[in-house]
Amino acid sequence: MSAVADIGLIGLAVMGQNLILNMADHGFTVCAYNRTVSKVDHFLDNEAKGKSIVGAHSIKELADKLKKPRRVVLLVKAGPAVDAFIDQLLEVFEEGDIIIDGGNSHFPDTNRREAELREKGILYVGSGVSGGEEGARYGPSLMPGGNPAAWPHIKEIFQSIAAQTDGEPCCDWVGEGGAGHYVKMVHNGIEYGDMQLICEAYDIMKRGLGMSNKEMGDVFAKWNNGVLDSFLIEITRDIMYYNDEEDGTPLVEKILDTAGQKGTGKWTAINALDLGMPVTLIGEAVFARCLSAIKSERVRASKLLSSSATPSFTGDKAAFIDQLEQALYASKIISYAQGFMLMREAAKEYGWKLNNPSIALMWRGGCIIRSVFLGDITKAYKENPDLENLLFNDFFKAAIENADASWRQVVSSAVLWGIPTPAFSTALSFYDGYRSENLPANLLQAQRDYFGAHTFHVKPECANKGLKLGEDIHINWTGRGGNISASTYQA
Amino acid sequence: MSAVADIGLIGLAVMGQNLILNMADHGFTVCAYNRTVSKVDHFLDNEAKGKSIVGAHSIKELADKLKKPRRVVLLVKAGPAVDAFIDQLLEVFEEGDIIIDGGNSHFPDTNRREAELREKGILYVGSGVSGGEEGARYGPSLMPGGNPAAWPHIKEIFQSIAAQTDGEPCCDWVGEGGAGHYVKMVHNGIEYGDMQLICEAYDIMKRGLGMSNKEMGDVFAKWNNGVLDSFLIEITRDIMYYNDEEDGTPLVEKILDTAGQKGTGKWTAINALDLGMPVTLIGEAVFARCLSAIKSERVRASKLLSSSATPSFTGDKAAFIDQLEQALYASKIISYAQGFMLMREAAKEYGWKLNNPSIALMWRGGCIIRSVFLGDITKAYKENPDLENLLFNDFFKAAIENADASWRQVVSSAVLWGIPTPAFSTALSFYDGYRSENLPANLLQAQRDYFGAHTFHVKPECANKGLKLGEDIHINWTGRGGNISASTYQA
Repeated sequence: MSAVADIGLIGLAVMGQNLILNMADHGFTVCAYNRTVSKVDHFLDNEAKGKSIVGAHSIKELADKLKKPRRVVLLVKAGPAVDAFIDQLLEVFEEGDIIIDGGNSHFPDTNRREAELREKGILYVGSGVSGGEEGARYGPSLMPGGNPAAWPHIKEIFQSIAAQTDGEPCCDWVGEGGAGHYVKMVHNGIEYGDMQLICEAYDIMKRGLGMSNKEMGDVFAKWNNGVLDSFLIEITRDIMYYNDEEDGTPLVEKILDTAGQKGTGKWTAINALDLGMPVTLIGEAVFARCLSAIKSERVRASKLLSSSATPSFTGDKAAFIDQLEQALYASKIISYAQGFMLMREAAKEYGWKLNNPSIALMWRGGCIIRSVFLGDITKAYKENPDLENLLFNDFFKAAIENADASWRQVVSSAVLWGIPTPAFSTALSFYDGYRSENLPANLLQAQRDYFGAHTFHVKPECANKGLKLGEDIHINWTGRGGNISASTYQA
Repeated sequence: MSAVADIGLIGLAVMGQNLILNMADHGFTVCAYNRTVSKVDHFLDNEAKGKSIVGAHSIKELADKLKKPRRVVLLVKAGPAVDAFIDQLLEVFEEGDIIIDGGNSHFPDTNRREAELREKGILYVGSGVSGGEEGARYGPSLMPGGNPAAWPHIKEIFQSIAAQTDGEPCCDWVGEGGAGHYVKMVHNGIEYGDMQLICEAYDIMKRGLGMSNKEMGDVFAKWNNGVLDSFLIEITRDIMYYNDEEDGTPLVEKILDTAGQKGTGKWTAINALDLGMPVTLIGEAVFARCLSAIKSERVRASKLLSSSATPSFTGDKAAFIDQLEQALYASKIISYAQGFMLMREAAKEYGWKLNNPSIALMWRGGCIIRSVFLGDITKAYKENPDLENLLFNDFFKAAIENADASWRQVVSSAVLWGIPTPAFSTALSFYDGYRSENLPANLLQAQRDYFGAHTFHVKPECANKGLKLGEDIHINWTGRGGNISASTYQA
């Protein structure tokens, strides 16, 4: 048996098959393997027929058919299956061979695997892959990270098959360890946020303005030619226009409104809490899915709980829709600003060098959140890779200030109409909090010191001889408590 | 050496000392121990002098001085210190002896410790203790859970020293394993929420209405005689009135507005995400602390980012303050409803039998969140222990419907004034989402099916021969995608 294949791929579900076809289209010979080997034969006899694709019926055969250093992509369910395949591959792979996990693994797992395999001389890569079926087939966004020694050996393949935008591939080296999967995780969290924002805009148009799906489709079509131009707005337009062939009415209205949330969005929110970064929009997007999931309880609540708030729009509908576009845009700017804040903190915490312009460019095309907007973010970070916050860039500062009044009008209307806008609202609260030199947390610190002797610091401009700058200060607020500060007790 | 002490306590920080004094006041003889033994002597010579308190200078001496079955309370820093003391105690304790962890341990640790010690014949209890210094000294709220065989041996002591409210102790058996620490964790999460809500009310009065601290103190004093009557409102009143002796101006205004959030509030939010329950208010409260913590970045942002929104109140100030009270009250109802939703899910997930009326009663007095409000919750759950949701109780349903219009007016005003109200806003969004029979998650499911072939279910009332009830349905939205549903790929 001769080593004919440039790269192997394990896992022939839809994403795996499409990635193989994509690689073959770009002139690479790919060896396909699947645990249920009948899938290999079926694939070779059908979709793969006539292409530079060979099959393997065992891990040994896969290893034999790969040129050295061997390169194999795993596209299997995240979790124990990845470890199981790695164990199998270790039996047949040699020092310098490369294993790439293209699934949605949690980044701490990738950190662990990369370190373990480095010890064994195997180069491990965890790569985010986004773009769904279509992306995998015709150009995904790829976010590889892990052992940097692997990159020169996979760069050509990865950058060839990735989406190309403005002449550049939507794939670059992200960083060490689990950095690739981390950035993919944040991508997915942002995707949760983008989807929730679109849902809120849809809900406002539907329940607030009483618009038909055709009218809403027209709005999304129009938005897709403006600042919101993006894959998710485009498919929302298509979805609005799609009618059930049974009766010709909009199919989306027949879909059960319960969404799952067990994956990467949740991880992003948990990581934000762990790192202490206020990534509120993704948090609310995940919680919105949780609330959608308890449908039967909501149905009971809807019969019991009333409100005087009802939609009562009377003004210029077209003007309000323009305000809605601005509200969505501003909220989206906040969400991405929060996402990049999180990645900045993660880079510090985990010791990665994350490259903001590259990340923005990787998300510019191929992936689910691809958009013109990400072109502007790429530009902002190319102009200043050390930009402290996206909101400090002139373009985005102007954009959000321009949207400000519309955004407030929309949130205020939704509040008065009784339409939930958790993501729009939290984005606005974040913006107002972020640009507040003084937040009311001074009171919170006073409360904590009052009931738990937790101490506080003084504002620099207020320091005096009783309140010294930088010192842990405890006040005996009541005259009753002792003067001992809490050292172990919390809350 | 004779066994003279009813109970021992390890850890002589302020909470530990106060708990010992409290137990001594109730006629129990307590043996005090601390790793730095000089603290023991100092305590015996000072605060403990003349009371039924003895000291130990080693773990062995502590064990010898305890009546059997031995009972000891650990009040040490959560984490490795707890395990270290358990290991030391295991060397001198015998089967049937009882170890109680009264610190803020994370409930999975308590689950683990209880199981490990059960194997060894030691009865382990993890007990929430809330009330700060004052509570520990004069009557805390105690939330013990763990090995049920321990409860008869500690019940008398615990219920004697706990706060008493309406003739009942604020202490009852919570459940098995880590249930006690779990309920304390949720208590602390709710405390985060309550504090954030008060901060937002303060910020609206200060920045929105331009009120002085004296005026705000008067408002909190008034609120403390109404539906918001609670420890946290009471201390906020005191804080508003408290002037710095240096210059006679309000001290709270000099406190640095950065709050920490590394503890139990974060755990609650993470647990909510893990269990898929929309505990949005605590989530926002934790994130608000995160945002407060990045003060230097906020200061820079405050110079750069402008908004046309400015406070511009012109109406009847007293009437608006009444609306604000209602907004706070309604948001608080939502927060507690979310907290009880989370505990219901946790009981299912971890196999605990949590008793809602007991939990409400334990929080009614002694602890930081103690309030008249919790008396109403106790009443609601006593009337119907299986109440599905707090909002379904007649009293709270009427309360929130009564507050509805005021709540919306306040949130809407804050939005237009540029004052951040993340907790008020998320509570309102939750309420409007919770009482929505149909949320826009149908669009989200359509998007996921469009780009990732994730499939969806049909609404029961919309099922037809092409869209069958209960089936995983995939639509070829574009005519281009395949008919393969995603089995491994996510997002």
